[in-house]
Amino acid sequence: MFLADCQARLAFDLLGNTWNAVVLWSLRHGPRRPGRLREEIGGISTKVLTETLRRLEYNGLVVRHAYAEAPPRVEYELTELGRSLLGPVGAVGEWAFAHADEVMRAQDRWSDAPP
Amino acid sequence: MFLADCQARLAFDLLGNTWNAVVLWSLRHGPRRPGRLREEIGGISTKVLTETLRRLEYNGLVVRHAYAEAPPRVEYELTELGRSLLGPVGAVGEWAFAHADEVMRAQDRWSDAPP
Repeated sequence: MFLADCQARLAFDLLGNTWNAVVLWSLRHGPRRPGRLREEIGGISTKVLTETLRRLEYNGLVVRHAYAEAPPRVEYELTELGRSLLGPVGAVGEWAFAHADEVMRAQDRWSDAPP
Repeated sequence: MFLADCQARLAFDLLGNTWNAVVLWSLRHGPRRPGRLREEIGGISTKVLTETLRRLEYNGLVVRHAYAEAPPRVEYELTELGRSLLGPVGAVGEWAFAHADEVMRAQDRWSDAPP
């Protein structure tokens, strides 16, 4: 595997925006309206959620369904491509949960003299 | 798993810099001198490699060994913490290898009218 290529850069760029990973992950159980996503995620503004959903849609990871009901209903759903990214996102998230404290302790060690 | 927290942000930030992932991955087989890393990675300048190694060291993922030989020798090695990140990095890299083309095709679909 050559990571220093365009394909890898694309993937790490996608995940480098934490909101992309957060919103992708919050869609893992099925289609969701934006309002419910906001509730489930917590701490995300309507503006940031909208931008993130558009970005995920642009990259083919999410599809938008608009239903002509009264009132109109909009839902977002992972595409097959989006679902395929759940594994890597979960792996990074689990690593963070288990090891982020160690990283922060390491950072603290340099507080007087960063390398 | 709550991804919208500080721990997850830290991990996705780390991987959001693709060079972090690339250099970490290139150390997976053992300690390496900077010159050999540059050869193996390809396309990375001395400056960027040095900055990346310092950043990985700062975050406790890499350790620097300086040997008082003539000429002096410096090697970098993954810490246990750094090794623990190889799995997630590999998962993202494999996903990229398998699916990045699909993402690029999805992006092309919007070339006339981005969402």
